Amino acid sequence: MNAFGRQFRISIFGESHGECVGITIDGCPAGLPLTISDFTGDLGRRGSGAKGTTPRKEPDLPVIKTGVFNDHTTGAPLTIEFSNTNTLSRDYLKLRETPRPGHADFTGMKKYGGFEDYRGGGHFSGRLTLGLVAAGVIAKKLIKPAVVTATLLEAGGSSDIDAAVEEAVQKRDSIGGVVGCTVAGVPVGLGEPFFDSVESLISHIIFSIPAVKGVEFGSGFAGSRMRGSENNDLFVSTDGKTLTNNAGGINGGITNGNDLVFRVAVKPTSSTHQKQHTINIATGQMTDLEIEGRHDTCIALRVPPVVEAATALVLADLMMLEGLIGRVYSR
Amino acid sequence: MNAFGRQFRISIFGESHGECVGITIDGCPAGLPLTISDFTGDLGRRGSGAKGTTPRKEPDLPVIKTGVFNDHTTGAPLTIEFSNTNTLSRDYLKLRETPRPGHADFTGMKKYGGFEDYRGGGHFSGRLTLGLVAAGVIAKKLIKPAVVTATLLEAGGSSDIDAAVEEAVQKRDSIGGVVGCTVAGVPVGLGEPFFDSVESLISHIIFSIPAVKGVEFGSGFAGSRMRGSENNDLFVSTDGKTLTNNAGGINGGITNGNDLVFRVAVKPTSSTHQKQHTINIATGQMTDLEIEGRHDTCIALRVPPVVEAATALVLADLMMLEGLIGRVYSR
Amino acid sequence: MNAFGRQFRISIFGESHGECVGITIDGCPAGLPLTISDFTGDLGRRGSGAKGTTPRKEPDLPVIKTGVFNDHTTGAPLTIEFSNTNTLSRDYLKLRETPRPGHADFTGMKKYGGFEDYRGGGHFSGRLTLGLVAAGVIAKKLIKPAVVTATLLEAGGSSDIDAAVEEAVQKRDSIGGVVGCTVAGVPVGLGEPFFDSVESLISHIIFSIPAVKGVEFGSGFAGSRMRGSENNDLFVSTDGKTLTNNAGGINGGITNGNDLVFRVAVKPTSSTHQKQHTINIATGQMTDLEIEGRHDTCIALRVPPVVEAATALVLADLMMLEGLIGRVYSR
Amino acid sequence: MNAFGRQFRISIFGESHGECVGITIDGCPAGLPLTISDFTGDLGRRGSGAKGTTPRKEPDLPVIKTGVFNDHTTGAPLTIEFSNTNTLSRDYLKLRETPRPGHADFTGMKKYGGFEDYRGGGHFSGRLTLGLVAAGVIAKKLIKPAVVTATLLEAGGSSDIDAAVEEAVQKRDSIGGVVGCTVAGVPVGLGEPFFDSVESLISHIIFSIPAVKGVEFGSGFAGSRMRGSENNDLFVSTDGKTLTNNAGGINGGITNGNDLVFRVAVKPTSSTHQKQHTINIATGQMTDLEIEGRHDTCIALRVPPVVEAATALVLADLMMLEGLIGRVYSR
Repeated sequence: MNAFGRQFRISIFGESHGECVGITIDGCPAGLPLTISDFTGDLGRRGSGAKGTTPRKEPDLPVIKTGVFNDHTTGAPLTIEFSNTNTLSRDYLKLRETPRPGHADFTGMKKYGGFEDYRGGGHFSGRLTLGLVAAGVIAKKLIKPAVVTATLLEAGGSSDIDAAVEEAVQKRDSIGGVVGCTVAGVPVGLGEPFFDSVESLISHIIFSIPAVKGVEFGSGFAGSRMRGSENNDLFVSTDGKTLTNNAGGINGGITNGNDLVFRVAVKPTSSTHQKQHTINIATGQMTDLEIEGRHDTCIALRVPPVVEAATALVLADLMMLEGLIGRVYSR
Repeated sequence: MNAFGRQFRISIFGESHGECVGITIDGCPAGLPLTISDFTGDLGRRGSGAKGTTPRKEPDLPVIKTGVFNDHTTGAPLTIEFSNTNTLSRDYLKLRETPRPGHADFTGMKKYGGFEDYRGGGHFSGRLTLGLVAAGVIAKKLIKPAVVTATLLEAGGSSDIDAAVEEAVQKRDSIGGVVGCTVAGVPVGLGEPFFDSVESLISHIIFSIPAVKGVEFGSGFAGSRMRGSENNDLFVSTDGKTLTNNAGGINGGITNGNDLVFRVAVKPTSSTHQKQHTINIATGQMTDLEIEGRHDTCIALRVPPVVEAATALVLADLMMLEGLIGRVYSR
Repeated sequence: MNAFGRQFRISIFGESHGECVGITIDGCPAGLPLTISDFTGDLGRRGSGAKGTTPRKEPDLPVIKTGVFNDHTTGAPLTIEFSNTNTLSRDYLKLRETPRPGHADFTGMKKYGGFEDYRGGGHFSGRLTLGLVAAGVIAKKLIKPAVVTATLLEAGGSSDIDAAVEEAVQKRDSIGGVVGCTVAGVPVGLGEPFFDSVESLISHIIFSIPAVKGVEFGSGFAGSRMRGSENNDLFVSTDGKTLTNNAGGINGGITNGNDLVFRVAVKPTSSTHQKQHTINIATGQMTDLEIEGRHDTCIALRVPPVVEAATALVLADLMMLEGLIGRVYSR
Repeated sequence: MNAFGRQFRISIFGESHGECVGITIDGCPAGLPLTISDFTGDLGRRGSGAKGTTPRKEPDLPVIKTGVFNDHTTGAPLTIEFSNTNTLSRDYLKLRETPRPGHADFTGMKKYGGFEDYRGGGHFSGRLTLGLVAAGVIAKKLIKPAVVTATLLEAGGSSDIDAAVEEAVQKRDSIGGVVGCTVAGVPVGLGEPFFDSVESLISHIIFSIPAVKGVEFGSGFAGSRMRGSENNDLFVSTDGKTLTNNAGGINGGITNGNDLVFRVAVKPTSSTHQKQHTINIATGQMTDLEIEGRHDTCIALRVPPVVEAATALVLADLMMLEGLIGRVYSR
């Protein structure tokens, strides 16, 4: 289902080349100051236009349809929409019979019986993350003074990200990346041992971001190769601060008051300008496929604000469940 | 909350040194043949006793309290319980003021105000996974002919697992491991683009297994360092089979008919026989801590059947949502 | 939370005098034929204009923003919106300090700290049922051949409804009514003994319709005054048909294949043209209140299509849970 | 599904003649004092033995399996069970082919394909309400100082309840009743306009109690026959107290600080000692049925503590959602 969260709950809708994409946010406290300008920063960071991102440019203007009155949230659901204006659907028509490797063309067709809106990835498009980022703007306000920061740590396996992107553009291929996320100022005690551990909830939403294929907390996979005496974080203060943070700020599924730390593996965009061999599912013949359209060389460049938003959404929900955020905003 | 699943739903309860641990399974079809002997295999694999596992031995006999009549499920909830018989709680009393590094002692105390049953990890204990494994036995029957297989790929960073465990026992330290899981025979079309992607649901439950700190699907973190033309899986048949499986059997959050493949990072057990430095949270003084009790040198040895169970639970739920498993079992 | 349903799930949003009201429908099968003209009938029945209904007239044109492509549902969420065009908000400004008796003015202000959009009832307005009726149009298609029919059985306590409304208009007062609902063609076996009995689910959504204060199934309150031998419905065929239908088509929370039958008590509209005594909550002084605005003399006249929609939504969800409606529409 | 509640959540399991019935309560705050003696009062009120109730007597001793440590809740799930000891299953064997009128025999068989535990009503039995009452004991403690009181207002249509029961026993028939419930001390602001109105949530759980067929709040069905000027409750104090309480303490789905008031229609027990005509679903022949077993003449006598429990469960959940009950109990 296209919804996530328990007390602070989002519902996502829309297609890449339909009328709009959008999100409804239910459970937001009343009285939170909110205007369109609050969205500018994060939506801009998610936007395209920089080297390595798609040349499709949209203004990405959020329209708050409901839930705000006199520049404050009302306590009723917020619906925020983004019109789709710059759509070139003809690019996608021929992909029906030759599903693109790595894309959801094949699975979408099988699941929805061919009725899915296949244009531009339809409901599977990364464009759906616009709503996530918008909801994240609200969540980030709610969770203050906790602050979420995500950055691209490496692209194409290199920490010199500019160079890696430049090289991929030259080679007309795509590259992936690793996004690191840190949250400072997290209260102790968020999350549950079963089944709503902080790791469970964060990974749940992060794995819904298109192109994400791995998530690890703290020392993660590297930690699985360490000894217990190395990996354990020694307490150094009575409020739970630790010398190291191999746990990524979480013990037993519950935040321990240290920074929350995790990393996200983003695969290379499936669309590349390289010629690929694929099958025509109508005829059963192998064929060559060249994807034209407009694509991101390195989608990972645009993922950090989406990771931040997703993380803030989880934390806002958990803080509400603990009673740390009330029905009426006060701060 | 201690529940997971939408249509096939589990609720977990119990403490390590309380009266029992158990699970309730709601939404199981009526008419599935089920007897106690069905549980023997997987519970045995999860059990302790082998080198590198805790010397605490319990018979781990499941008692089916409800939901089975004449050796078949009735369609009503199944409650399955395991008595706790072999408990040495005195080991844990002194840990109240000196929380063990890497454990949930500190977070549990903060979250539950000191009222938590702290004995043996209480509700945070790995013993809670007994219920998961029992529910998984049922789920595995339901999802047939799909078959889930998890194995320990490495321990302490080495693929020679016996040697790694032997060395850790010698050094009186603990080690982690990486578990690989593969599902063969998965139908095409399970999962949703947002927010219930197959990756989202599997990672959600897998990250509830104590000690898990990372999950990656298909090429995962390695894939984030590949080029799109390398990482894409080329279709080779009209039913969606691909030449490689870097996607781990999932595109756009939806199963594509290839094997489901993922890996799980398990941290080294926090309890080691090494002396550790920690803080006395009552006095604020640093102190040395030696954990006695009975512990696993390599808990990862016991994780594969738990990963299998968790995966089967997700797949059973998704297959019900698609109408592939009915209200009354028939196969 | 502003959402209802498990597998066929609706989320409602909007305010009476804001930009729009709307609904998102998640879980609708792909491939269902759907055009704007499908909505005309039920939205018209819900509309105002007849004697006894509010003089506020809106075109009530649904706009399908997402989830439909080539006149068929895509399997992705449908968002349907209705613009608010005919709003006279000045009528409501003075009600802030003198809450209207019987309205949600007081509770809304307390719950949302004064930040709620109070104009025209805001998010509490009966106008929110536009989305419900729209979603019901879709649900009614899905549950065929089951057919839901609701009618106004009495108004102001009289079965001569026209006369009762006429009298109330004359007296410048409001009246309530009783709506009866019958569903023919319901399959046997929908619903659960606990806690999702058919009665539970239907009453849950019906009691969300503004002004509803009572729900009874089959013989209901009258049945509580009968003897068991009178109230029991005798089976007359092997497919479960009964001679009488005092159970309203439900035994043990589960449909029995007879018609589903229930009645709904609708209170008189709280807004009347009668002068009322109330308190000024700022000053504590008692004061007279005359409500101007535009109101329904008998809101119950407009409730039947809303009851039908709500009922169809529950049945569509239950039929999906039983696998009677698939992921792709076929009929 | 056999679960109810959002933050304070119950899961029910068991069969009348199986090993036990029970309940798991998830989300209960840590630190609530709780011992077995707390349950005695309400379980006794629900028990049998008085004139008009079944001669089946069970000790109904609750066993707290998990979630309590040192006589306080731990914050982990509580599982409470009741053994079934006094079962005479032979009574029920012959009912398989001749389903009892008014019972769930027919619907259960159809839904669960004949695999249901049919003995003593199985999972449909009123005995399942033992768990509800036990959970209600905990909820009642949590919602203090709010106090829930339910009483039987009429039996067999008469307010002289003893006489009505006596007459029914004489006539070897069963009778129903009307239960009234009042909650004093409810905070303002519980509930939501859509879809979790207080009426919606209370009716949802109340309609899961076996034999309930109607629920009305405040003036209910009678109110639907009143004029708006009569039915409106005039405010008399700035904290929202009203002169009358036709709204039953709820406006716009939200509590208004006046007493919560509703009534519940309980049908006459389907089992009567009267001979009934029914159909043999195997042969299609009409036949006479005499129900032996042990039954309640007036089950409504035992319903008030169940209604109280169900109501307290809803209120506890709503108070948690508003942050009025915290993660650790303090009062």
